[in-house]
Amino acid sequence: MKTPWEYRYAQRTQRMESSAIRELLKLTEQPDIISFGGGLPAPDVFPVEEFNAACDRVLRNHGAMALQYSTTEGFLPLREMIARHSARYGIKITPDNVLITSGSQQALDLLGKIFIDPGDRILVESPTYLAAIQAWNAYGAEFITVPMDSDGMNTDYLEEALRAGPKFIYVLPNFQNPTGETLSLERRRKLLALADQYGVPIVEDDPYGQLRYEGDHLPSIVVLDSQFRDDTTPCYRGNVIYLSTFSKTLAPGLRLGWVVAPPEVISKLVQAKQGADLHTATFNQLVAFEVARGGFLDRHIHTIRDVYGRRRNLMMTAMEREFPSEVSWTHPQGGLFIWGTLPTYMDAKDLLKTCLERKVAFVPGEPFHPTGGGKNTMRINFSNATHDEIELGIRRLGISIGEKLARQIA
Amino acid sequence: MKTPWEYRYAQRTQRMESSAIRELLKLTEQPDIISFGGGLPAPDVFPVEEFNAACDRVLRNHGAMALQYSTTEGFLPLREMIARHSARYGIKITPDNVLITSGSQQALDLLGKIFIDPGDRILVESPTYLAAIQAWNAYGAEFITVPMDSDGMNTDYLEEALRAGPKFIYVLPNFQNPTGETLSLERRRKLLALADQYGVPIVEDDPYGQLRYEGDHLPSIVVLDSQFRDDTTPCYRGNVIYLSTFSKTLAPGLRLGWVVAPPEVISKLVQAKQGADLHTATFNQLVAFEVARGGFLDRHIHTIRDVYGRRRNLMMTAMEREFPSEVSWTHPQGGLFIWGTLPTYMDAKDLLKTCLERKVAFVPGEPFHPTGGGKNTMRINFSNATHDEIELGIRRLGISIGEKLARQIA
Repeated sequence: MKTPWEYRYAQRTQRMESSAIRELLKLTEQPDIISFGGGLPAPDVFPVEEFNAACDRVLRNHGAMALQYSTTEGFLPLREMIARHSARYGIKITPDNVLITSGSQQALDLLGKIFIDPGDRILVESPTYLAAIQAWNAYGAEFITVPMDSDGMNTDYLEEALRAGPKFIYVLPNFQNPTGETLSLERRRKLLALADQYGVPIVEDDPYGQLRYEGDHLPSIVVLDSQFRDDTTPCYRGNVIYLSTFSKTLAPGLRLGWVVAPPEVISKLVQAKQGADLHTATFNQLVAFEVARGGFLDRHIHTIRDVYGRRRNLMMTAMEREFPSEVSWTHPQGGLFIWGTLPTYMDAKDLLKTCLERKVAFVPGEPFHPTGGGKNTMRINFSNATHDEIELGIRRLGISIGEKLARQIA
Repeated sequence: MKTPWEYRYAQRTQRMESSAIRELLKLTEQPDIISFGGGLPAPDVFPVEEFNAACDRVLRNHGAMALQYSTTEGFLPLREMIARHSARYGIKITPDNVLITSGSQQALDLLGKIFIDPGDRILVESPTYLAAIQAWNAYGAEFITVPMDSDGMNTDYLEEALRAGPKFIYVLPNFQNPTGETLSLERRRKLLALADQYGVPIVEDDPYGQLRYEGDHLPSIVVLDSQFRDDTTPCYRGNVIYLSTFSKTLAPGLRLGWVVAPPEVISKLVQAKQGADLHTATFNQLVAFEVARGGFLDRHIHTIRDVYGRRRNLMMTAMEREFPSEVSWTHPQGGLFIWGTLPTYMDAKDLLKTCLERKVAFVPGEPFHPTGGGKNTMRINFSNATHDEIELGIRRLGISIGEKLARQIA
């Protein structure tokens, strides 16, 4: 029988169901399970002492301001710092191009709020970031997908997808969540040229760009866009909306992200954010500014790269050793994730159930595919596990897969 | 000429325009203006040292947890504290009835997201809280209004309004924003009875309930609802969704509010919040818990009552002395605001322009009326001004009104 509440919910809630995955993931939170399921940074690299010192300075020197309401746009010195930092990478912007958000998840939500009418199409990679699908489903988005390969979004399929008239293109060019793959330079240029030709803006989501463990840094799409018309001085042209976050470089528990966009889009996002949460916590913005200033963030990112790079290497070596030859996986040059592909007849959700019995967990890949498919894929996180956990967890995972294979053949 | 972006915005953005008021309010931020415009708590009562000590304890003892991702529902000990605290007032709930939000503005937004389909009607007081109108406009809400008087929402008009089929009733029973008026006990009971009869849930927004400076505490609507069927032990019946916040008792710069609702509504709100910002900042929740525990919050609220109560008294006395007899105003027993009514021929927006020249500001009341009216009304904040500012500001305001009156007569 329906409760009275069930008659009251808005239609959009029908597309907001909690995923079966989330239910499964709750099981992985038992302390005796080695979980490669989440997308969590390693807490052992959080700069806890620097935070404590920063809190003390902020509260001693600016206590009244730090605890008071503040502007929706965000703390000006933080927006200035982001503008300066962007300039180092060739994005010439001012604080008027920057909005501070309550994590970059909020940026996805606000973009949905200002751009997506029910039935609007969004062009995404398949697979793509699960929480973007979730945020935009609530606004009634439909998804057009372009497949991924080891060079990222396969731009050979892009033009056909653009002909379906998407509102915008959503792309994670660096060490994508979930696949770990990186969009090649050639494809970045092709993506930009086609987006320009079809008059479709790009939303570039870049939470992991600074977490590269091998190979050369590739210019982000927003930077390439600023150089696109090579007859002029590089400047922010505005067809790329760029999202990033402090969650992977400082700490996710602060919920601090930002959007770079043309001032007219920022001003619409500000209106949407006023209704959503008035502004991002003042205290958090002042503390993050205090921690990040003076070069600490740059030094800290080197530490993170070192720690995560070693974990990635260890996991890849363990996979080579422990995984049956029927399994393939990506070789991410950065980020937090490795993406595994099982034989097509195998369902990663079934495998997860077996794995949970063996006290190891990952995320099945199917929900990352907004238009279906990917039953035999899996996302494996390497950032939030110790070396011992990686060794033991990958062994358990290998054994579980081997068992499934044997049962299939038998 | 339209920019390409203007063709891309979702339809809902047409109802999200920044108000003219907000533009006027920007003028009030000049340092030489005495502003009674905002709704800001007094920064001089922020417990800055307690925050600093709490940050230190949290980071020393739980640094890794405080800076990591956490659950969407919120920090369990904080939800338990809220449940215990609610029990003191007669609301018997468990942590499963509580969701921590990024300020209570987010609670308004999430309620809109899960309940409001375009065209749905929401029953509100007129005038009502401006940012609730703003949040729900984005979901295409229509508003049915019931007038306010000195006993709060005039329930004589309620039944007719309920016949228009609202999705829910939104009410601020204590020291309402903007009028400062309080819903009488008799009307609280009548509101509950009618809501029950028509099967319409109530959203009770109570940011100021603890900030009472005179008179006796009235039980909140959610408490009366739990006693409504007097044949049973008091328990949370679930027809009232209750919102509150730490913004007025601890500090707004943390962005911490909460919702009390039936578990099935909490679970829908959690789904909506996952897409909106994943979760409220972990660090802020741990710090607020650390500051509030052990009775500090109760003692601190006494200080706030004392400071704000004296400011209110001073402002009311100054108004008696300085305001022309053509002006009337409310006598709030708590909260942050006094509501002024000018002669009907006078427009408070025009008055504000004159006032800004005299370096004093308030908020014109018209935008608080979702179905129009109130051009001659004004909201005056007393919490965020020193005694000198109140004396001088009210004198300037009185002179400006007197001038307008004289010009009208001449």
